[in-house]
Amino acid sequence: PAAVSPDCRKVMVIGGDGYCGWATALHLSKQGYEVAIVDSLVRRLFDEQLGTYTLTPIASIQERLKKWKEKSGKTIDLFVGDICEFQFLESCFKSFEPNAVVHFGEQRSAPYSMIDRSRAVYTQHNNIVGTINVLFAIKEFSPECHLVKLGTMGEYGTPNIDIEEGFITITHNGRTDTLPYPKQASSFYHLSKVHDSHNIAFTCKAWGVRATDLNQGVVYGTFTPETQEDEALINRLDYDGIFGTALNRFCVQAAIGHPLTVYGKGGQARTLEFSTRGYLDIRDTVRCVELAIANPAKLGEFRVFNQFTEQFSVNELAKLVTKAGEKLGIEVKTQSVPNPRVEAEEHYYNAKHTKLMELGLEPHFLSEGLLDSLLNVAIKYAARINTSLIMPDVSWKKIGVTPRTLVSKQP
Amino acid sequence: PAAVSPDCRKVMVIGGDGYCGWATALHLSKQGYEVAIVDSLVRRLFDEQLGTYTLTPIASIQERLKKWKEKSGKTIDLFVGDICEFQFLESCFKSFEPNAVVHFGEQRSAPYSMIDRSRAVYTQHNNIVGTINVLFAIKEFSPECHLVKLGTMGEYGTPNIDIEEGFITITHNGRTDTLPYPKQASSFYHLSKVHDSHNIAFTCKAWGVRATDLNQGVVYGTFTPETQEDEALINRLDYDGIFGTALNRFCVQAAIGHPLTVYGKGGQARTLEFSTRGYLDIRDTVRCVELAIANPAKLGEFRVFNQFTEQFSVNELAKLVTKAGEKLGIEVKTQSVPNPRVEAEEHYYNAKHTKLMELGLEPHFLSEGLLDSLLNVAIKYAARINTSLIMPDVSWKKIGVTPRTLVSKQP
Ligand SMILES: NC(=O)c1ccc[n+]([C@@H]2O[C@H](COP(=O)([O-])OP(=O)(O)OC[C@H]3O[C@@H](n4cnc5c(N)ncnc54)[C@H](O)[C@@H]3O)[C@@H](O)[C@H]2O)c1
Ligand SMILES: NC(=O)c1ccc[n+]([C@@H]2O[C@H](COP(=O)([O-])OP(=O)(O)OC[C@H]3O[C@@H](n4cnc5c(N)ncnc54)[C@H](O)[C@@H]3O)[C@@H](O)[C@H]2O)c1
Repeated sequence: PAAVSPDCRKVMVIGGDGYCGWATALHLSKQGYEVAIVDSLVRRLFDEQLGTYTLTPIASIQERLKKWKEKSGKTIDLFVGDICEFQFLESCFKSFEPNAVVHFGEQRSAPYSMIDRSRAVYTQHNNIVGTINVLFAIKEFSPECHLVKLGTMGEYGTPNIDIEEGFITITHNGRTDTLPYPKQASSFYHLSKVHDSHNIAFTCKAWGVRATDLNQGVVYGTFTPETQEDEALINRLDYDGIFGTALNRFCVQAAIGHPLTVYGKGGQARTLEFSTRGYLDIRDTVRCVELAIANPAKLGEFRVFNQFTEQFSVNELAKLVTKAGEKLGIEVKTQSVPNPRVEAEEHYYNAKHTKLMELGLEPHFLSEGLLDSLLNVAIKYAARINTSLIMPDVSWKKIGVTPRTLVSKQP
Repeated sequence: PAAVSPDCRKVMVIGGDGYCGWATALHLSKQGYEVAIVDSLVRRLFDEQLGTYTLTPIASIQERLKKWKEKSGKTIDLFVGDICEFQFLESCFKSFEPNAVVHFGEQRSAPYSMIDRSRAVYTQHNNIVGTINVLFAIKEFSPECHLVKLGTMGEYGTPNIDIEEGFITITHNGRTDTLPYPKQASSFYHLSKVHDSHNIAFTCKAWGVRATDLNQGVVYGTFTPETQEDEALINRLDYDGIFGTALNRFCVQAAIGHPLTVYGKGGQARTLEFSTRGYLDIRDTVRCVELAIANPAKLGEFRVFNQFTEQFSVNELAKLVTKAGEKLGIEVKTQSVPNPRVEAEEHYYNAKHTKLMELGLEPHFLSEGLLDSLLNVAIKYAARINTSLIMPDVSWKKIGVTPRTLVSKQP
């Protein structure tokens, strides 16, 4: 790896025990950054509570870091605690003194945020307060520190015009201004990211914070070179109805002969797309974050990058998985299930994503090769799959005020 | 008053002990609506904690309601509690069964939200969670109930194009869509309102909630016909650096010979305005809310009205107060003080506000008469004024993580 600039050498990865955070922490460590993970491990608690679990058997964070030290000779610091508790976050900042903070540490499942009222409130409280605390910690203890914050492409919704990267220039009644791109999020989770973005933009202006908001697409895949080095370094792969994301779920379904569950009624017009979204390989997630860190925002700058590499409709994904399955001798069926979400199914979708390319991103495209490898991981661990966790169980419309117990779904 | 439609007869006024809420509750009661006030009275606690107090000596909520019953023969129900506690809100909904909820019940001071980290977090938590709870209560217990939610013109910031009412039609790369108007709020308080608006818009789409978001300008004045009926019904009038709003503060300053404190360096170009904002008389606040209730949004509709009647720059306000003072024989001076906020001082400002006019609003304009009456109230209670509370004491840039004690400012 190229030499790391001393201005961005020390990177705090909040949420570093999670799916994107773990892969990123190892990648940065390998590249020569000094890395500290801050995580409350609450994601592991959600699994316990909902009876869900990763397909890949992940090690504890302590074992993970021990193994990484063994394999790479590198130490990653660990701070276990909740960033909503400011005193904890303060102690992390004072002891580690980061040059950059990558903030993955939020409740990140849209269905989870739509289970019941208390989880909706938890999601917004956890995400908003955590981010406000990070902003105050930067202002107070490390004003030069660059915040790299994970947002989501879902913040934009599906407008009938092209989606730009964070801002749009509008000419209206003869005057022109460049304004934040209008947001239309459609779950309490996605909304929490919209709120974060507004809060961060304000502190960039008011306090001179430097920040990069990464509006990430749906991430797929499980392996990065570092997580592949040892079974104890393996990354999580969620396939259940609550934490599993589109393509990862499809591959797991294909591996055990479960029909691919496509939401909605199907049907696809020529110019309209059917639930089209932006996607990226997890190997690109880690690289995008590194590019953002290595090319920091200026003091006071609020920068937005759309972080994905390709757009697919769900139907296109289903076809790709079906084709990849054929090559492995698996017959893949598709089943249309009622859409538990409230979202436009047929819509225009064209989102820009050039800024990270301009910084040097070389995408891993969703080739059949990758499908093979993701499919093969699913096949390898197929015996661990609990099929009762696959179907969506959370409905946007049926969400109520009574806390929902999901213990009946335990394997 | 004209007959009230049974579809909107029962109105729950959340925050009904506050400045706008109290005047609105009495107005609606007088008009024949059945009114219930829900309030935690936390605003009175803020005063105790900060050593601030209303210029007008307000009665307790219990005395207020007793006096109103005596004067008008009408009962207003009272529920004292915090809407962030869902079980409390649930019991209010179940016992009162509202047709409409007017939601004033938030922490509403921008400087308060910028005192320290814990008050920034409190403001966003209190406002966001309270509003989410109201949305869940409507969905679960009164799905037909119309939410009339108080937002602020400050959500829009000061874009260089005309401000529309909630939505803007954008043509971009040859395609057109009508999208939420971009928001650029500039305090943790104003941001909380932006977050509320996004959350409400989502539930209108997902659950079919009907809502009117009132982006209110700066309210001035203290008397409405109902609050004038008895000394025990008098409304609050804040003049301190934390809760006092622009024009109300100026009148109090004028009344005691304190120079008007104009933020910023002054200077005013021809096409640019100097800290221009929208203003309205409190007698129009109560009327706007009634118009929204009497003409409810459709199920699933998210409607936005800009609620103000005139635009003024701070310099224009200062001039008006100076002129009104002259007529009362008071010499009014103006003093430029450093702007404690971070905001554009010279900027274009042209905000639409036709929707409430179309529903029949007949504005009270800021005539000299009103200034006289507001000035006269200030003169009447001048002996109660604590001049040490007048100067701004909260700086947007100096906000820190340490909780600030303000007891030293007690009168
Ligand atoms: N996975 C995706 O496809 C995807 C897509 C777009 C955006 N994102 C964003 O990327 C980030 C990471 O996503 P992920 O898939 O790795 O999620 P994840 O749930 O696997 O990881 C999040 C981690 O944050 C931790 N965390 C949560 N709240 C915390 C708190 N208050 N204090 C300390 N730690 C806390 C959790 O314990 C967990 O380890 C999230 O912000 C998510 O919204 C992910
Ligand atoms: N006053 C203005 O100039 C102005 C301008 C624009 C918008 N607004 C909006 O109008 C609304 C009312 O403003 P105001 O000036 O009357 O404020 P206020 O502080 O006088 O009244 C707010 C009331 O809400 C109550 N409250 C706050 N949090 C609560 C909770 N969690 N549970 C129950 N009660 C709670 C307080 O006790 C208080 O009585 C606010 O939402 C404010 O943002 C006011």
